[in-house]
Amino acid sequence: MSIDSEILTALRSANDEGVSGAELSQRLRISRAAVWARIEELRSLGYDIVASPHQGYRLLSVPDVLHADDLLSRLGKARFIGRDIRVFRETTSTNDVIEKLARDGVKEGVVVFAESQTKGRGRLGRKWMSPMRKGLWFSVLLRPRLHPQAVTQLTIASATALVRAIHSQTGLAAEIRWPNDIVIRGRKVAGILTEMNAELDTVKYVILGIGVDVNLSASEFPPDLRKLATSLRIETGEMLGRATLASEILRELDRDYARVCSCQFELVADEWEERSNTIGRAVVIQMGDRRIQGRAESLDADGALLLRTQHGHLERIISGDVTVEK
Amino acid sequence: MSIDSEILTALRSANDEGVSGAELSQRLRISRAAVWARIEELRSLGYDIVASPHQGYRLLSVPDVLHADDLLSRLGKARFIGRDIRVFRETTSTNDVIEKLARDGVKEGVVVFAESQTKGRGRLGRKWMSPMRKGLWFSVLLRPRLHPQAVTQLTIASATALVRAIHSQTGLAAEIRWPNDIVIRGRKVAGILTEMNAELDTVKYVILGIGVDVNLSASEFPPDLRKLATSLRIETGEMLGRATLASEILRELDRDYARVCSCQFELVADEWEERSNTIGRAVVIQMGDRRIQGRAESLDADGALLLRTQHGHLERIISGDVTVEK
Repeated sequence: MSIDSEILTALRSANDEGVSGAELSQRLRISRAAVWARIEELRSLGYDIVASPHQGYRLLSVPDVLHADDLLSRLGKARFIGRDIRVFRETTSTNDVIEKLARDGVKEGVVVFAESQTKGRGRLGRKWMSPMRKGLWFSVLLRPRLHPQAVTQLTIASATALVRAIHSQTGLAAEIRWPNDIVIRGRKVAGILTEMNAELDTVKYVILGIGVDVNLSASEFPPDLRKLATSLRIETGEMLGRATLASEILRELDRDYARVCSCQFELVADEWEERSNTIGRAVVIQMGDRRIQGRAESLDADGALLLRTQHGHLERIISGDVTVEK
Repeated sequence: MSIDSEILTALRSANDEGVSGAELSQRLRISRAAVWARIEELRSLGYDIVASPHQGYRLLSVPDVLHADDLLSRLGKARFIGRDIRVFRETTSTNDVIEKLARDGVKEGVVVFAESQTKGRGRLGRKWMSPMRKGLWFSVLLRPRLHPQAVTQLTIASATALVRAIHSQTGLAAEIRWPNDIVIRGRKVAGILTEMNAELDTVKYVILGIGVDVNLSASEFPPDLRKLATSLRIETGEMLGRATLASEILRELDRDYARVCSCQFELVADEWEERSNTIGRAVVIQMGDRRIQGRAESLDADGALLLRTQHGHLERIISGDVTVEK
């Protein structure tokens, strides 16, 4: 952990008590002047840290910015996903950044956030709107020992993790629209873009790109999206601290990724089915030029959707645009 | 086509007749001095071009080097695979070069050859030996509209193309060992490494990496490979012109790729089954830690191998290491 992470961790665990400069200096093995300089740096980023002769340093509030050291401090040391976190003020797409890291041989678990993306993208090259500091736009590098056709498991796992994190932070009961959308009252609030680099039988790496609309107001969505999309702020009526949500999501992702890696995908799938707005419903699925209608029955062992068509066949669907019929 | 390609095309179509400097100058719309300078350049690369006052320029022989302009001249204009050819004297792996081009948005059909590779690779990160000018080490960029699980079709198509090209250039009846090896009398002479970049339901691009052992002598193989690998030179007893073979392979690849893209994969699969040493045979397939024994029955619509196991089940195998039992 970096020095800033350790300072924030110490301030957080001290709560209202405060931590003295001497104590920080001893814990971090740096001079008191160096502690002071780091505190000044954190203040300049918007962290409201007061110092008093009796109580030492206290953290009163944190700014709504994403700061890698802060996120690392919130996650603690043990995490797998998020053991390396990088934050960009602006980038083309966090998936692009992760792809470069993947090719450079960086280990799995690294997470890249951007406060805004100029070329955020969704499935099939669609545009993903990612305005400055209004949401969480990030990507995760994974190197799972999975067959390419089992990579859908990771999309499924990410969806359950997102739903759990959103629920614990807001109380909202978000639902999953197979395979990669998180919706609230039928409107999309988050999406997952899964990209992979593979040989025929082995995955080299997977990039999970995740976008969560956190603090956008209704007027910040383009008119054509307002009936289709929403944000956590619109749904709760409150602004949300993005760093808290981000660390909660990474914690839950880590948990579900561990389940996939230890061959416990069926646990994830069971949870997914409970949270899904798709299973058991009449749906229409658009796959390129093909449109298929039926009843979504369940997930198979790879995370594909099993659809009972109008003609009674069971079709295995790997991906597509799903509309749930009323 | 470049000027060098056009000069070589003109010299080839003239055969023994020769082409005058004046004619070349007119055809290429460059000065006679410029024609002479280009001819000098080709000579410096090893092209044996004589000039006589009566017959003009004649091409007596070509060197065993790969030269992009020469390959383009041999292929002609109409080709799809090979409309853009780049030759490196040495590179890490031609797949790496193609991957960079793919990310830069280069159109499909570009082919990269290297006279030698320092980090040539086979399946699952295995090393592929690629000594200077002894073989064909190249990669092709494709952007097919295929589902990731249908990408095996391209490996199958490349294998049939390689077998046809080897047969037409050497008379040798090479066989295909599913999914990606070309063998002669049980020894591997060429291999195909298929890599892809994909979303769950769409391929973004595929890189076909192909290695053909052309002019290696037996002593140039490491001792542990001598029983497993061979070269066209060992099998025919003759050195082969690599440029001729390269252009024949690209022509055949182009033909099979067109068949896959026009939904005629079953034609490719039929041809593949005829040339295969795997179908109808008792085989052992090693897939990671798993070993499975049975009789190879056929290919399915995606190019996967259908294996009838000892227990009578039909298993669908996407990739693995196959040993054909005697």
